[in-house]
Amino acid sequence: MDSDALVSCGAMMLQFVAEYWRSIEKRPVVANVQPGYLRQLLPAQAPEQAESFSSIINDLESTIMPGITHWHSPNFYAYFPTALSYPAICADILSGGIACIGFSWIASPACTELEAIVMDWLAKAMNLPEFFLSTGNGGGIIQGTASEATIVALLAARSRIFKEKKTEDPTLTLGRLLDQLIIYCSDQAHSSVDRAALILGCRLRKITSDSDCVMRGEQIEIAIAEDRAQGLIPFFIVATLGTTPTCAFDDLVTIGRVCEKEHLWMHIDAAYAGNAFICPEYQYLLNGVEYAESFNFNPHKWMLVNFDCSAMYLKDRTHFIDAFNVDPLYLKHAFQSSAPDYRHWQIPLGRRFRSLKLWFVFRSFGLDGLRAYIRKHIQLANYFISLISKDNRFEIVFTAAAQLGLVCFRLKNSSNELNERLLKALNDDKRIYLVPSMVKQKYILRLAICSWLADEKHVKFAWDVIEQVTNKLLSE
Amino acid sequence: MDSDALVSCGAMMLQFVAEYWRSIEKRPVVANVQPGYLRQLLPAQAPEQAESFSSIINDLESTIMPGITHWHSPNFYAYFPTALSYPAICADILSGGIACIGFSWIASPACTELEAIVMDWLAKAMNLPEFFLSTGNGGGIIQGTASEATIVALLAARSRIFKEKKTEDPTLTLGRLLDQLIIYCSDQAHSSVDRAALILGCRLRKITSDSDCVMRGEQIEIAIAEDRAQGLIPFFIVATLGTTPTCAFDDLVTIGRVCEKEHLWMHIDAAYAGNAFICPEYQYLLNGVEYAESFNFNPHKWMLVNFDCSAMYLKDRTHFIDAFNVDPLYLKHAFQSSAPDYRHWQIPLGRRFRSLKLWFVFRSFGLDGLRAYIRKHIQLANYFISLISKDNRFEIVFTAAAQLGLVCFRLKNSSNELNERLLKALNDDKRIYLVPSMVKQKYILRLAICSWLADEKHVKFAWDVIEQVTNKLLSE
Ligand SMILES: Cc1ncc(COP(=O)(O)O)c(C=O)c1O
Ligand SMILES: Cc1ncc(COP(=O)(O)O)c(C=O)c1O
Repeated sequence: MDSDALVSCGAMMLQFVAEYWRSIEKRPVVANVQPGYLRQLLPAQAPEQAESFSSIINDLESTIMPGITHWHSPNFYAYFPTALSYPAICADILSGGIACIGFSWIASPACTELEAIVMDWLAKAMNLPEFFLSTGNGGGIIQGTASEATIVALLAARSRIFKEKKTEDPTLTLGRLLDQLIIYCSDQAHSSVDRAALILGCRLRKITSDSDCVMRGEQIEIAIAEDRAQGLIPFFIVATLGTTPTCAFDDLVTIGRVCEKEHLWMHIDAAYAGNAFICPEYQYLLNGVEYAESFNFNPHKWMLVNFDCSAMYLKDRTHFIDAFNVDPLYLKHAFQSSAPDYRHWQIPLGRRFRSLKLWFVFRSFGLDGLRAYIRKHIQLANYFISLISKDNRFEIVFTAAAQLGLVCFRLKNSSNELNERLLKALNDDKRIYLVPSMVKQKYILRLAICSWLADEKHVKFAWDVIEQVTNKLLSE
Repeated sequence: MDSDALVSCGAMMLQFVAEYWRSIEKRPVVANVQPGYLRQLLPAQAPEQAESFSSIINDLESTIMPGITHWHSPNFYAYFPTALSYPAICADILSGGIACIGFSWIASPACTELEAIVMDWLAKAMNLPEFFLSTGNGGGIIQGTASEATIVALLAARSRIFKEKKTEDPTLTLGRLLDQLIIYCSDQAHSSVDRAALILGCRLRKITSDSDCVMRGEQIEIAIAEDRAQGLIPFFIVATLGTTPTCAFDDLVTIGRVCEKEHLWMHIDAAYAGNAFICPEYQYLLNGVEYAESFNFNPHKWMLVNFDCSAMYLKDRTHFIDAFNVDPLYLKHAFQSSAPDYRHWQIPLGRRFRSLKLWFVFRSFGLDGLRAYIRKHIQLANYFISLISKDNRFEIVFTAAAQLGLVCFRLKNSSNELNERLLKALNDDKRIYLVPSMVKQKYILRLAICSWLADEKHVKFAWDVIEQVTNKLLSE
């Protein structure tokens, strides 16, 4: 009976994960395997006959775990965090157990309605403008990733400008328009903007950010004027709050004013930093959000909600529904006008019951608990800053409006090459894991607080490792 | 301690789901709520303070469950199935517990390697051409949905043709090319093809399928000739194996030959029916797959793997990597040349450890068990056919090369309007749930075997309901 198997096998799996969490600190943070390692350990064909669940569990330590780079090891400081928590995992058990596909309201009303409600909760917790609430013309939707959110926003904006230009010139084709369209982002924006432009076929101009890696309205205004003079049509910009390399914050107020004046769609990508906006002390970083047509951040990065959960807000949902006007009979239903059908707001048709994750996490931690979690990571980053600041061989670089949980540093007065050797020596040492970035021709090291288990002692350990490896490197 | 909370709360959640599965048959299959029902039951704001996990569980029956349309109720016959199984749910617990983001090999080698291996297992089980194996120039990747697979295939094809045409004419712009590009699919293809065309900015021509809803090479050849005469550039076609309305199979062999001759990229969308190809007796339906550049089907529909798991195969992965040539320093790593980085093969950057689901399912059921599952659903559909065939008020319509688990039927010699009233009466009756389709101007009823709990007695029940409701309708 499968219900019994779920309970018994599920319990084994939970025990395995709990044991993994308890031992994660002792594991090498980066997988120490060579490409192709797993193929040597597994059969070349799927088994014909069923195997017992315990035989699968027994294989995990010998096959899968050696190939894991442990994103939740407290020694993992690479990229940005990815979130994890027991309530989110429990919510996914429920989502998997119900296994409804909520592409339209009728396909499972609770799936659509809970999503609208918890996205409203989240918007209120962040003090987002009212027009992003589902009770008005806008609303929130859970996308899989920030990349998809950018694509969906760009698609809606492209469809809006095409409609407008076509009323001026009914013979206009999309291709002819595309050759004139141009979109903007900072040179610090995430590579997913490049991909969105590429998919949608729009030219992308990267605005050189200032020395603090901030993009501002003036720079865009100049670019727009230049591009209009060339016969191009500017219509879309991605402003980043918390860039990937240095956690810089684009200047929304001045950018937003330009967008308003020049009729550009402003999409905000706050993938990582957006999570901090549930703390009132960081909400000032949202100043200017009122100019945005769409806004996105990833609770799956830093708000204890497991991947995938990317929170996107739209100011006017009709632009999205217009862009995706595809409606076969087998998807029609009687409630179409009175309830949102999220399939019109996203790229895929199918969708899981992802709002359960947000709901479980909100209730299990409370906003207070979530804020405490964010603040603790920021405090740990500050603790690292206090440690590294005492060593005058290092400098903190590109200090952002808000550091949040990321610290960028490098060896002072040193070549990129030396810093690159330091990064390599650190990763060869294998006790901690960092990734570098190249910003304004400077090779920098990034230390992002990632693990939900991270504590002061781990940050102290990381600093000790950095100090030791630096000593060794500089004495060579 | 969160490890303990995971074990104890996870166990409560598993019990809840197990109890849900045991009682699912007794629940009304379609949610009986009005739009907005949930907002009246939940607070308008996220809680400030943490709540106990049992209080969340206690709320489920009163808030969420009334709003669920039960896709795994044995009385659910709508759309196509969505898959569910205890091993897949267990695998998701592990995926959530590890919470790695496998966008590149180094970010968790096991995540990339297991995916390549189980996708090879699957290709071998289906007897797919060797060029789809990861050991050659191609390989498999798990996409979120069939919609994304179509977009990715179309993007690679668009990038290939742009490159080719640009060598002929270096001044060519993408916009100018787009105004000439044209892609094809059958008038029976899924709406996700419309969306892919819309996103990529390509004109889409729907080929009128024959009276059995089959698209063939000859029809495409005519369309291509017409379109070339208009100055258009045909370059891509989606062939469907198992169309959504009637489970029709496009004629791959003749379509493939035209594609070869005319240099078109053939993408195969076998979202639902592809699952049956693990049974040797259905592999003949794959004849012609050797002409395809890309192939996709959804194990998350019918192979006991929970959403999201869409299995996509590429013949030549360089087309995909070329299309997505975006490579910032923070994503580079030392093993780039010796291991695949799946981020180049998909729309999002982030990705979960989804291959665990496939691996657990393969091992827990064995290929034998999976084939038995597929065959049982097909046998249940045949049982329904045997029941309805005895009632000469009905006709089975649009018999496909392989019925698989879908039966299309209608009241014989009756108007669309009467059939529409029958569908409405059935859904108002609320004991079973079906969706209609409009095919060749005929309004038809679709009965798809969906639940993993479905058995002969349920199919008999469905037939009894249909008979009763029909009697009542026709006697009115
Ligand atoms: C600023 C920013 N935008 C977008 C992304 C991409 O996120 P996703 O994987 O959700 O597409 C990231 C990932 O780190 C990011 O830092
Ligand atoms: C033939 C076909 N293609 C594509 C899809 C869309 O699937 P997805 O939700 O995975 O994009 C479906 C869904 O039923 C389908 O039947």
